[in-house]
Amino acid sequence: MTAPIGHRRWAIAEGYIPSESNGPEPAMTSHETASILNAGDIDAHVAITIFFGDREPAGPYQVTVPARRTLHQRFNELEDPEPIPRDTDYASVIESDVPVVVQHTRLDSRQAENALLTTMAFAASG
Amino acid sequence: MTAPIGHRRWAIAEGYIPSESNGPEPAMTSHETASILNAGDIDAHVAITIFFGDREPAGPYQVTVPARRTLHQRFNELEDPEPIPRDTDYASVIESDVPVVVQHTRLDSRQAENALLTTMAFAASG
Amino acid sequence: MTAPIGHRRWAIAEGYIPSESNGPEPAMTSHETASILNAGDIDAHVAITIFFGDREPAGPYQVTVPARRTLHQRFNELEDPEPIPRDTDYASVIESDVPVVVQHTRLDSRQAENALLTTMAFAASG
Amino acid sequence: MTAPIGHRRWAIAEGYIPSESNGPEPAMTSHETASILNAGDIDAHVAITIFFGDREPAGPYQVTVPARRTLHQRFNELEDPEPIPRDTDYASVIESDVPVVVQHTRLDSRQAENALLTTMAFAASG
Repeated sequence: MTAPIGHRRWAIAEGYIPSESNGPEPAMTSHETASILNAGDIDAHVAITIFFGDREPAGPYQVTVPARRTLHQRFNELEDPEPIPRDTDYASVIESDVPVVVQHTRLDSRQAENALLTTMAFAASG
Repeated sequence: MTAPIGHRRWAIAEGYIPSESNGPEPAMTSHETASILNAGDIDAHVAITIFFGDREPAGPYQVTVPARRTLHQRFNELEDPEPIPRDTDYASVIESDVPVVVQHTRLDSRQAENALLTTMAFAASG
Repeated sequence: MTAPIGHRRWAIAEGYIPSESNGPEPAMTSHETASILNAGDIDAHVAITIFFGDREPAGPYQVTVPARRTLHQRFNELEDPEPIPRDTDYASVIESDVPVVVQHTRLDSRQAENALLTTMAFAASG
Repeated sequence: MTAPIGHRRWAIAEGYIPSESNGPEPAMTSHETASILNAGDIDAHVAITIFFGDREPAGPYQVTVPARRTLHQRFNELEDPEPIPRDTDYASVIESDVPVVVQHTRLDSRQAENALLTTMAFAASG
């Protein structure tokens, strides 16, 4: 049940954190998440690189997903080396030293009712 | 038409069951679903393992998807060996003894109007 | 630009046509769609089989997607050999004699504001 | 971090630009987007071809995604060789001279509250 599952390199082409929200924080705050599952028995050291339309990439942002754990990392909360600007198109590449599974989700609460989207990230070969 | 299609091992990195709902039950109750299609001629015995951020995995939860049937399993309704906590980040690995296809869906009715998301689960090789 | 792209066999594990809708028909009628792209130079003859939770599969439903065309087939409008019941969990397998690309979408207008979901279908090997 | 990731050929079977919108422009204008990530060190020259239900394909539409950049291209804004008609089913094939990652997103604001959908595009082999 805990054998490695996944890939070491993933990409999410879509990224956008709305600056506006409606509803109680933090559950209803507009946010983007990379949900990372490490189903294996070795801790995953993960580096996230953020790509933009008009400047060089930011990062890497370093996070750890312990063995047999999942981390639902909000892009809103990435602060080091720099916060991700709001209302700005971006994309991301997620690289891990052990296989993980990555899924992308956004909660958009700019209007009174929330909207949701999700997709598995793109799993790169190799 | 009924030859096996799919994989034996799938992962869903995103999981979250809101504790709040709006609208008539059970259709409009906030829920997460793993839709499992067994298009083959042999019953599928499926084991679901749930991963968390801060504790060891729960499960396996055992379900059967008969030959040439689909089961839309709500995570809300998994009770044995233990219910899945609400308002908690989780992830899941779905393992079957015959090939199946797995798709992930959430209906979120925390606000007055519902929101939906879906994605094919990640199909592991091997 | 018009070389074949895609697979001959696809599966969608999730299916559910709500019987209720809000808003002007047909655009805002709750519906499920299989969008099929035939980017090649040969007409695609497509057979759709519908799987249920508690009965044998229905179909095949036959549709044609001409060369260099897309068909956004609403499951609501499949009538032969039998209509698909509303408010019922189902799944589908889509088989074509030439490579096509299949994407699954639902518009749910049961509540006042619509909700949308989409995912690429699962592409079977072979 | 900047090695090539992705494929050279992608397809999106679903496409539909609603002619109606609610809320402030351009953020809340109903739109469809192909988010393209070029994580590599060579500029990507991308050709988009649009397929319809009842006529020959339109395009190619030419866009460039510079090295280490992402472009979130709204289909609404493709004008050359011809704009994409509103309220019309379409599909698209995206071809690049270097590997890229493509994700499909729609914001539908026809009703008072917006709805969102997304999926990774289908990555063709070869």
